[in-house]
Amino acid sequence: MKNVLGRDIPEKIGDRVLQPFAGAFARVPSGRKAARPQKTIKPGENKLLGSIEEAIEATGLKSGMTISFHHSFRNGDYLVNMVVDACARMGIKDLRLFPTALFPIHAPIVEHIKNGVVTRIEGSMNGPVGAFVSQGGKLKEPGVLRSHGGRWRAVEAGDVHIDVAFIAASQADAYGNANGIYGKTSCGPISFSTVDAQYADKTVVVTNDLAPYPAYPFEIQQGWTDYVVVVDEIGDPDSIASGTLRITRSPTRLRIARLAAAAVKASGYLKDGFSFQGGAGGISLAATKFVGEEMERAGIVGNFAMGGGTKLLVDILHRGLVRAILDGQAFDLAAAESMRHDQNHVLMDPGHYANYDSRGCSTYMLDAAFLGATEVDLDFNVNVNTHSDGQLLHGIGGHQEVAAGAKLTLITVPSLRGRLPVIVDRVTTVTTPGEVIDAIVTERGIAVNPKREDLKERFVASGLPVRGLAEMKAEADRLTQPPRKPIFGDEVIALIEWRDGTIIDAVRRVEGWE
Amino acid sequence: MKNVLGRDIPEKIGDRVLQPFAGAFARVPSGRKAARPQKTIKPGENKLLGSIEEAIEATGLKSGMTISFHHSFRNGDYLVNMVVDACARMGIKDLRLFPTALFPIHAPIVEHIKNGVVTRIEGSMNGPVGAFVSQGGKLKEPGVLRSHGGRWRAVEAGDVHIDVAFIAASQADAYGNANGIYGKTSCGPISFSTVDAQYADKTVVVTNDLAPYPAYPFEIQQGWTDYVVVVDEIGDPDSIASGTLRITRSPTRLRIARLAAAAVKASGYLKDGFSFQGGAGGISLAATKFVGEEMERAGIVGNFAMGGGTKLLVDILHRGLVRAILDGQAFDLAAAESMRHDQNHVLMDPGHYANYDSRGCSTYMLDAAFLGATEVDLDFNVNVNTHSDGQLLHGIGGHQEVAAGAKLTLITVPSLRGRLPVIVDRVTTVTTPGEVIDAIVTERGIAVNPKREDLKERFVASGLPVRGLAEMKAEADRLTQPPRKPIFGDEVIALIEWRDGTIIDAVRRVEGWE
Repeated sequence: MKNVLGRDIPEKIGDRVLQPFAGAFARVPSGRKAARPQKTIKPGENKLLGSIEEAIEATGLKSGMTISFHHSFRNGDYLVNMVVDACARMGIKDLRLFPTALFPIHAPIVEHIKNGVVTRIEGSMNGPVGAFVSQGGKLKEPGVLRSHGGRWRAVEAGDVHIDVAFIAASQADAYGNANGIYGKTSCGPISFSTVDAQYADKTVVVTNDLAPYPAYPFEIQQGWTDYVVVVDEIGDPDSIASGTLRITRSPTRLRIARLAAAAVKASGYLKDGFSFQGGAGGISLAATKFVGEEMERAGIVGNFAMGGGTKLLVDILHRGLVRAILDGQAFDLAAAESMRHDQNHVLMDPGHYANYDSRGCSTYMLDAAFLGATEVDLDFNVNVNTHSDGQLLHGIGGHQEVAAGAKLTLITVPSLRGRLPVIVDRVTTVTTPGEVIDAIVTERGIAVNPKREDLKERFVASGLPVRGLAEMKAEADRLTQPPRKPIFGDEVIALIEWRDGTIIDAVRRVEGWE
Repeated sequence: MKNVLGRDIPEKIGDRVLQPFAGAFARVPSGRKAARPQKTIKPGENKLLGSIEEAIEATGLKSGMTISFHHSFRNGDYLVNMVVDACARMGIKDLRLFPTALFPIHAPIVEHIKNGVVTRIEGSMNGPVGAFVSQGGKLKEPGVLRSHGGRWRAVEAGDVHIDVAFIAASQADAYGNANGIYGKTSCGPISFSTVDAQYADKTVVVTNDLAPYPAYPFEIQQGWTDYVVVVDEIGDPDSIASGTLRITRSPTRLRIARLAAAAVKASGYLKDGFSFQGGAGGISLAATKFVGEEMERAGIVGNFAMGGGTKLLVDILHRGLVRAILDGQAFDLAAAESMRHDQNHVLMDPGHYANYDSRGCSTYMLDAAFLGATEVDLDFNVNVNTHSDGQLLHGIGGHQEVAAGAKLTLITVPSLRGRLPVIVDRVTTVTTPGEVIDAIVTERGIAVNPKREDLKERFVASGLPVRGLAEMKAEADRLTQPPRKPIFGDEVIALIEWRDGTIIDAVRRVEGWE
């Protein structure tokens, strides 16, 4: 079947009947969420277990089950590999992994796919696992990619039932209160797992820093935690900050960032009470910096900035340019540090941030946001998941929710990456539909979505280089050879969910090249 | 039918089949909790309404429905009366009130019972409403009294379905994030309503202080809140502190407090990592003070103290005698003030504090607790709800959960109140069963529960005046005339739930006097 964007969607995967994407706010949820399991304990019962293996036994984890993880340690996470390795040793097979995201450090999962320990993955697959799955024929069912808010929604709605949640915590007490803010290897918020802890049949907290009771803040609560395991190491916090976490030095990219900041200024949204989401890409970081400078010059105090938390955002908070930071994820250790000291650096879980099935997300309160893309197309659709060669290499993160929420969503991209054009006729994969994108900012100018004539007028009045998207595409295309295009087969290797649970696109296996 | 304590319990009330109490930890919950309603909103939708009346209309509140409230403003709350008055004006009848607790300020509810606006009440009825209901024949069904944790449990389990939750917040933003920590009239935590906000079909936040977005901490989250109403006044925070909130000056009561503190010292629990719950009664406050002094002398640092928060507990925190305070309710404004400044004064909701249907409560981590009683009996059963004349004048609060959790639960009571004996053969009403009470401390000595021979030996070894309960009773009885005893009829005016949802006692109407 085809969804409203004309994308080919399978009707069913396994037992699941798929709903086609019908528009960014078309779906109206009704009825009730899933019901959480009843649990109890008597005073004096001990939750501490000696090892991951003991936890696997105690939870009754068996072949065919679903296990979940968060990605707050990003490329420094040890827990996913530890647990899957232990399952493999114990003869458990056919697992469905339900991480928020996998990173290059999880490359060993490739072996576990080959040997049948892991047969399904629902979650972002950044890097090698994504590349492997992209080859096709590797998983029993297609992968499912969800946004941060979409994953939260799916658990609450009962779309995904978690058998055992494993939660890495940089600090926990023996009763199962846990957080990522304190501890020997603080990683920043771990509240991606808050919903897992509540809905999973069994919840296991794994920490390398057992604190006296009570460990706080209560990102994970004792009432949800079945067992606690202490290990020597749970992750390498120095690997949280990815290589992209630097303000770009490229003149082209700096020009894009300056244009984006100028667009924010021209938009009329930049006034007292202003709010924005930064991001972690080099252009986003630079644009955030420029907007901060603009606020300082104009004497504007914003209501809030939203993370992923970075040193740059913390500086903006400390300079009094915003009243608060809302933060669900640390992109560097300065952000985690600030959360220990700044009461107005407020921890926010993904439900609060981005849940479609709720009476409001923080992203709906955003004035402006800078987001990236691997591709954009002439309908303003954005792809952040696949490359033009069809490889599935990136997750959705909060892209969908921020774009859907912010009054001014700017996609900041160079028109070319190496020899590859970024503006295309039709994106390889739709992650975020054009209807929620306000403008695309490249080094060649700013293309405004035709839905936003008001914005276009303001930009033109401010002397910004407003251009047609097709025009910028043509210019870029002239500078390079048309790239070889992949030929897609029938096999669906992954589904891309829109944040409301409908399917916005299906990623198909590349079978050859034009 | 009779429960395990031999108390006469009705088999059914309305449609509800009652489960008899079978022991403090006898019930093993299974299956799943109730499912929360799905909700949604589009960006830009406005939640602000102009009045309580508009909120009543917008939520579809109708005759026969259930409305809920918290009691964080205690005897200074304006919201219950405002809402019920508005319902009355709008012709709504037959409401079930589901407050956490009513106070003397809610005396106008008596008129609304008479005129049929309110026909059922589930919640504590401190003072005039309790006295009125005690006369019998007033409500369509008996009142139901639950502990703090028991109420949370009941909502999660689906025992009580809330149609509309009204939540007084001393600060909120227009999107429905709300708290009681900040604002013009801070009242301390309002997280009694956290579970209401999540499970109610509709949730209305009412505030007198509308803050810029985001208002934090997120005791109530935007995602749960349907509407926000701004009013001039929501409550009088000066009435939060009740008259009892002073350290006793009575020599008899000071002796009891000193004995209790000495009992804690003798118990062996008073060492590094120690934890305790104070309380707000005059004796409990004095005992807390004496234990604090003991810790200071001995150089002991405790893990945590638990509120209701008071200036006394805050002082203990500031003196470094405990690492943290866990707090779900402010008994004075100093506690609320501390929560704005002290990161280790940690907000805790009643689920975390006390939920039987969870993998652990904070009360299960308590070493010692001082609790009050209106009566105790020779089986160590405790009554906090009714007076010896059968009048239902007090709520349960956290009595059941603290007693069930603490390793050392001391009931601190004078043996006589005026001419009334406190130690009786059989309590008028069982609130908390003797099996979870460790000792009863009166000015005449300490009676240790026979289950705790270990404790008795320690007390004797420390030279404490260990006495038999019957012996202390006989002594007290000799000093006074036997009081007239009420004759109870068949009409059940209220059910007392044990924290697990079973019925520990039924309060019957007084029909005459012996």
